[in-house]
Amino acid sequence: MSFNTLIKCINEKNNPTVAGLDSALSYLPESYIDEEASKHDKGLKAAALAVLRFNTELIDAIYDIVPAIKPQSAYYEALGYHGIKTLAKTIKHAKKRGLYVIMDGKRNDIGSTCEGYADAYLGETKVLGESYRAFEADCLTVNPYLGYDGIEPFIKTGKSIFALVKTSNPSSDDIQNLQCADGLLYEQVARLVKQWGDETECKDGYNNVGAVVGATYPAELKQLRQMLPNTFLLIPGYGAQGGTAADIAPAFDANGGGAIVNASRSIMCAYKKAGKPAEQFAQYAREEAIRMRDELNLIRK
Amino acid sequence: MSFNTLIKCINEKNNPTVAGLDSALSYLPESYIDEEASKHDKGLKAAALAVLRFNTELIDAIYDIVPAIKPQSAYYEALGYHGIKTLAKTIKHAKKRGLYVIMDGKRNDIGSTCEGYADAYLGETKVLGESYRAFEADCLTVNPYLGYDGIEPFIKTGKSIFALVKTSNPSSDDIQNLQCADGLLYEQVARLVKQWGDETECKDGYNNVGAVVGATYPAELKQLRQMLPNTFLLIPGYGAQGGTAADIAPAFDANGGGAIVNASRSIMCAYKKAGKPAEQFAQYAREEAIRMRDELNLIRK
Repeated sequence: MSFNTLIKCINEKNNPTVAGLDSALSYLPESYIDEEASKHDKGLKAAALAVLRFNTELIDAIYDIVPAIKPQSAYYEALGYHGIKTLAKTIKHAKKRGLYVIMDGKRNDIGSTCEGYADAYLGETKVLGESYRAFEADCLTVNPYLGYDGIEPFIKTGKSIFALVKTSNPSSDDIQNLQCADGLLYEQVARLVKQWGDETECKDGYNNVGAVVGATYPAELKQLRQMLPNTFLLIPGYGAQGGTAADIAPAFDANGGGAIVNASRSIMCAYKKAGKPAEQFAQYAREEAIRMRDELNLIRK
Repeated sequence: MSFNTLIKCINEKNNPTVAGLDSALSYLPESYIDEEASKHDKGLKAAALAVLRFNTELIDAIYDIVPAIKPQSAYYEALGYHGIKTLAKTIKHAKKRGLYVIMDGKRNDIGSTCEGYADAYLGETKVLGESYRAFEADCLTVNPYLGYDGIEPFIKTGKSIFALVKTSNPSSDDIQNLQCADGLLYEQVARLVKQWGDETECKDGYNNVGAVVGATYPAELKQLRQMLPNTFLLIPGYGAQGGTAADIAPAFDANGGGAIVNASRSIMCAYKKAGKPAEQFAQYAREEAIRMRDELNLIRK
């Protein structure tokens, strides 16, 4: 789905938050894993089923508050194919609950191979003439290092992507802040992202190629909002990584739109901050999602 | 496994080739998909089982010729969790056949998330105190755009990675050839890869952080071999993408070592070039693997 769908979801819930599903096993109630292990083989299958239960209950607790979820592929891949089954079922459940699904895979490859990733997450796979959806995501994060032919297959699906521009991690400077002929590298990448996006459909001001910019780099966030007036921003790094609401304020446009802020641990593990047992994660996740919504709405208006 | 294991496999088979398993459905005999579809539900499961049969037969036809295989994740992800099950089983079969397995996922993320990818492909996942391997790969391709903290979790496994430096695709220039303060971007990335690798174990001359450099850019390949004397090179782009044996010659060190050349379509689809039906893929793949081995051995000595 294009970002128009995401914008509609954000407006309906009056909330520019995406809940990250970085469902590490250490975030789950251990009892969930124990219960699955007693019913099935121990190991990755039991863990994957416990994650599915956790994700389903988390989605059910917050789907009327947040407009979108963002499953982080690494945590599912660490559970092997059982984990990927949980990923597919989590996405299916989120879609049933009306959520916009941003698949966080940071995928990248040469053009012909990228078509496989595009089919997997945004398009369809043809088998004997019939089309099937491997995962039902609306949007995918991608890494731009390979250039346009590694981006085009995603754009051709007609759906949206977020390309990494300036990531939230401490060593994002290593490569992204190298001095180039025409600015720092992330600035040059931002210009390419703008160019790629400007060739896509653009309704309501935002085209289909968004950018990932970390809340942990507020000066760059402000600069990139100005450089990229038609680029929707995905902002990780809020909460557990240290980004504050004040850091994020400049990411929004004059109407309070144009950006969505990710929170993973701060929502999933809100029970830990409250000193409560993991079994109460859903209740505290909901409270934190409401608190974050209200905090972001104060600074974006 | 470190590159010492790969070097040992290359020397035993006297062949610096890795067979890429980019198992697109269009490469398979359609009869394989038909047969699975008649036994199971139509769709992704049937397709994934047909790919597993194709991969197994391909491995059985070439395992005594090539030292390594490189499954390309995109093609498995396009078949959903059924495809990932096929990926895991393909890797298991290749290990049983004594092959070194390079997982081609070009994974990348911030440090804490990269640990999930490192656990998935190179390490282990802990569930209730016991350790399990999600996939049994020996090595993983990674994208360096996020800098060192997105590389360190892979290095910490003690196994090997190949970081993208100069990729084989036409638009790799878009970002990789941007002019930076101290050379082109790929040259700056190459210096970082060297720095990251030099901190790892280094036996027999090669450290654990290799580099991906495309055969389609022979001048850069020659330059990077000289810049990176202790960096093992993975060279895609031979064959179907246009790279020739002569283009690859400068990638090898004075002893004919230090590099492995990938061939995917040219081996998997050798039957097409021979004008034969897809059912004969294994025989023609073997012939092409032998031809390629002999061709590379002529230019690396």
